[in-house]
Amino acid sequence: MSSIQVLMIAGTHGNEINAPWIFDQLNEDFRLIDSDSLKLFTLIGNPDALQKGSRYIDRDLNRSFSPELLSSSSEDLEICRAKDLLFKFGPSGQNPCQVAIDFHSTTSSMGSSLVIYGRRPVDLAIAALIQKRLGLPIYLYESDESQKGFLVESWPCGIVVEIGPVPQGVINSQIINQTLLILNCCLDEISSLIKGSSSFPEKLVIHRHLKHIDFPRNKSGTPSAFIHPDLQGKDWHPIKNGQPLFCNLSGDEILLCEESLEDDVCPVFINEAAYSEKNIAMSLTKKESWYFDDKWSDALESLLKH
Amino acid sequence: MSSIQVLMIAGTHGNEINAPWIFDQLNEDFRLIDSDSLKLFTLIGNPDALQKGSRYIDRDLNRSFSPELLSSSSEDLEICRAKDLLFKFGPSGQNPCQVAIDFHSTTSSMGSSLVIYGRRPVDLAIAALIQKRLGLPIYLYESDESQKGFLVESWPCGIVVEIGPVPQGVINSQIINQTLLILNCCLDEISSLIKGSSSFPEKLVIHRHLKHIDFPRNKSGTPSAFIHPDLQGKDWHPIKNGQPLFCNLSGDEILLCEESLEDDVCPVFINEAAYSEKNIAMSLTKKESWYFDDKWSDALESLLKH
Repeated sequence: MSSIQVLMIAGTHGNEINAPWIFDQLNEDFRLIDSDSLKLFTLIGNPDALQKGSRYIDRDLNRSFSPELLSSSSEDLEICRAKDLLFKFGPSGQNPCQVAIDFHSTTSSMGSSLVIYGRRPVDLAIAALIQKRLGLPIYLYESDESQKGFLVESWPCGIVVEIGPVPQGVINSQIINQTLLILNCCLDEISSLIKGSSSFPEKLVIHRHLKHIDFPRNKSGTPSAFIHPDLQGKDWHPIKNGQPLFCNLSGDEILLCEESLEDDVCPVFINEAAYSEKNIAMSLTKKESWYFDDKWSDALESLLKH
Repeated sequence: MSSIQVLMIAGTHGNEINAPWIFDQLNEDFRLIDSDSLKLFTLIGNPDALQKGSRYIDRDLNRSFSPELLSSSSEDLEICRAKDLLFKFGPSGQNPCQVAIDFHSTTSSMGSSLVIYGRRPVDLAIAALIQKRLGLPIYLYESDESQKGFLVESWPCGIVVEIGPVPQGVINSQIINQTLLILNCCLDEISSLIKGSSSFPEKLVIHRHLKHIDFPRNKSGTPSAFIHPDLQGKDWHPIKNGQPLFCNLSGDEILLCEESLEDDVCPVFINEAAYSEKNIAMSLTKKESWYFDDKWSDALESLLKH
């Protein structure tokens, strides 16, 4: 058996209940997945929030892994939990894991997708393997000082899986199937890599983060318009200047108007329930085709084949 | 102006945010609706829960209006709120309202629908008027001791509006439009009745509550299966014995198997996020066509034309 240990996390947000439900079933019958030669830990990120059915208790666990917070003496439940997870499963923890995969769901129509934070070669390499196999879009999230401290950044290699649309607190058969498919694919690709039977793609498609767009708001901060019906559910679809983004109760439309808007700009996370409090109605990305860099596969192989 | 006062409530559950958002917009520009000759109060049922984005703080407000709870000395936030609402807007309150309309949303595919609790003639009469105008299904909820203390039961006449599917915490253009349509229809029908220009239907269609069906659960109480993909979204569609209700991770199906199942049995509230904690995966109803009884219109006219 390889010495590689993989951490799979579900319920980092306690109201995203599909992956936690799968993990619960796996605990009863682990034959439901094939972890092959890997040592696999499946873990609930925020069990207190899951129990309560809320995203978090004191603060967003998936924004609690910044060096400042991890070195703080805060007693916020999520900061304590972040430290605890690192103590137990972090790269220098009791059960050191090399890879962390964090399973989320969203109310946005994201389908099955991957999120990577910044351009770590190992993350790009593993995302490329999964994209080659399943064709999933990859959202490259970077250059946003307002959102940081993501869980997977604390592991040597880590990606987020985002699947939607599904309401918070609802288990949906399609979301279950999609989650299980990606979970098995991740395990399979890591196993193949360790065995030396992986082949990386020549190119990968990246949706590179450009900016967030907030709802129009009135003086008290309440949204004064909602997502335009023509845009609802159109995550990953290219958008052009002049297209309606929002609509208010009187029927007035607010149109996209971005200076020097490029081609292939696609909104993602349109109308994600939890992002309104973060002042995000959607995020704009630039769809790009990148050549795969051998340094990425070298980095991943060096991490996983020691 | 008529002396009739109508109470419209939104956000009785704090994570059902579409109707509260509309009320917020109305507060800025009341010309968006036409309350005609009526005195209308629009009110947020549970502002603390709305602020927090959760269904409730201490307990479900829409199960807090039973005589026992209202006469208790409990300090639960929702019981205090129930008393407060009755003190201010109850039939013997500071601003006595004759009619209460309570706007909800649901993660189930209920479309636009009405719920009445029991067979009060006035509720049947007003529901019939709205059904005649908009064709909405009416869910007659009765004979269930496990669920009681509904808000509208504390007013002389009261109905619930349920619209979905929409995730909790998400504002959706379609839900907004449907809510606004029903809101205006309710006001219009009440105004017409007061002016004497109403005409009641000969018949109405009722979906009469039969029973709840819970998820299959394991020993620890966790659901061991999810709503079958063929049933998801099929609220109001007739169901027959042998049809699959649930599915587990191994693909096993759990079929409907009811002794002496009648025709025209339709599931409603399939996979409503908030009902899992109430052990309700769906509810079965019997679709029935009822002759309209003149006593119902007499009762409503006597209430509203005094």
